[in-house]
Amino acid sequence: MIDSARLQLPEFVPGSVWLVGAGPGDPGLLSVLALHALGQADCVVYDALVDRRILALARPGAALDYAGKRGGRPSPSQPDISARLIALAQEGKRVLRLKGGDPYMFGRAGEETLALAAAGVPFRVISGVTAALAALAAAAIPATMRGVNRSIIFTTGQSAEAREADDWAALARTGQPLVIYMALHNLGSIAAALIAGGLSSETPAALIVSATRADQEVLVSTLARIAQEAQAHGLEPPAIAVVGEIVAERQRLRAMLQLVAAESSM
Amino acid sequence: MIDSARLQLPEFVPGSVWLVGAGPGDPGLLSVLALHALGQADCVVYDALVDRRILALARPGAALDYAGKRGGRPSPSQPDISARLIALAQEGKRVLRLKGGDPYMFGRAGEETLALAAAGVPFRVISGVTAALAALAAAAIPATMRGVNRSIIFTTGQSAEAREADDWAALARTGQPLVIYMALHNLGSIAAALIAGGLSSETPAALIVSATRADQEVLVSTLARIAQEAQAHGLEPPAIAVVGEIVAERQRLRAMLQLVAAESSM
Repeated sequence: MIDSARLQLPEFVPGSVWLVGAGPGDPGLLSVLALHALGQADCVVYDALVDRRILALARPGAALDYAGKRGGRPSPSQPDISARLIALAQEGKRVLRLKGGDPYMFGRAGEETLALAAAGVPFRVISGVTAALAALAAAAIPATMRGVNRSIIFTTGQSAEAREADDWAALARTGQPLVIYMALHNLGSIAAALIAGGLSSETPAALIVSATRADQEVLVSTLARIAQEAQAHGLEPPAIAVVGEIVAERQRLRAMLQLVAAESSM
Repeated sequence: MIDSARLQLPEFVPGSVWLVGAGPGDPGLLSVLALHALGQADCVVYDALVDRRILALARPGAALDYAGKRGGRPSPSQPDISARLIALAQEGKRVLRLKGGDPYMFGRAGEETLALAAAGVPFRVISGVTAALAALAAAAIPATMRGVNRSIIFTTGQSAEAREADDWAALARTGQPLVIYMALHNLGSIAAALIAGGLSSETPAALIVSATRADQEVLVSTLARIAQEAQAHGLEPPAIAVVGEIVAERQRLRAMLQLVAAESSM
């Protein structure tokens, strides 16, 4: 599907593992290297957040191996997944480890590369469009805007360990926007911790559900109200939350688009 | 070069502007949509950080229009660039606004979309692999690692406005790793501000220069020494700095790779 020679793409060597970011869901946001890897891999070990349209691009005959949670059953443990990657590579397979977003951003590629290195398996890490940036673009919220912010914080709403209120307060005190992966489940308590940490309860906040997919939804509210509104709308994961003044840029842009539409209909 | 029909890519409509992230430099990290846009655009308005190998993928006959700094001359102002995009679209061109990294991350796409919306020009924003994540992957430093960090802060070393020491101190007090775009010029004063804000002078720090390009270099040091070492090595922009314990993961991985290499040579 792509001209690998013209693009001078590297060979996917048998017996190696490529850890590749599949991006947020839209196949158009796959990288050229990801598409190349899908066309060459003998097996694809993929996570829950990898879109079916992307898996459909794998070479016919490639084995598709699901490494996420299925139904009520627990997902394979991280050591089990690493052991599987090593075993497949040692069988001489081209192993594509396909992750949603970017493999190094809440994607556990750090743990998998350490295991591969320890086993002497050659590997390559290929960046992807991280879900947070894709969600911002899909919702027309700039990650940075001159005069608004000079930093942006990416964090997660879900932690194996309990998250201290102090952590959230320290993030709040930077005054910089927060983008929260896996935001939905704990959103009420996160918002409360951020307000306790000093953010105004009127801080603009948005939730982007299923970013870049056909069923994408964007909810814009305030920090104080967003969790309750998300529940009222029955929103379901995956969702990214954005907290901060950059959310207002979406409203500015939309106001302008509506103005233009109104003018053109006159 | 790509099978647009199979991938169901949207049409690049004449008279519209696509604001597209070109990623960090490696053409393999271009998105499928970026490649599609390059193949269809009538003109490409590009920034300084877009790689020549990527521009070479534009449709033969496409006008290439440079919007960055050239030699000692000042770069076109942001209003001038926006006016140019609007004028080209109003001539009925397919206008590709190509930016290094991700268009919404320190890429001023926010300002350009507002100007386009105000002029009634249709546009689309297409995410790219942001330079910071590509630099981390290229240097084998995970953005997040369980047990090490649950947040990561992206910021810039360069600001039109003066940056307050308090800003850096607030970032330091989160205890979370910092990734600093355009880090080289002010690195000494940034490191001093972070140490004044409470970070240990022995915090691991890395500089990744020209990430994903043939001349990529990685310098690993400590917060106290990195600016001086960068100068001693004569490092030049573009450079991304990483400050925090995640930098030590690179050293763990390298130690393991060396061990494997030593074992295999026995």
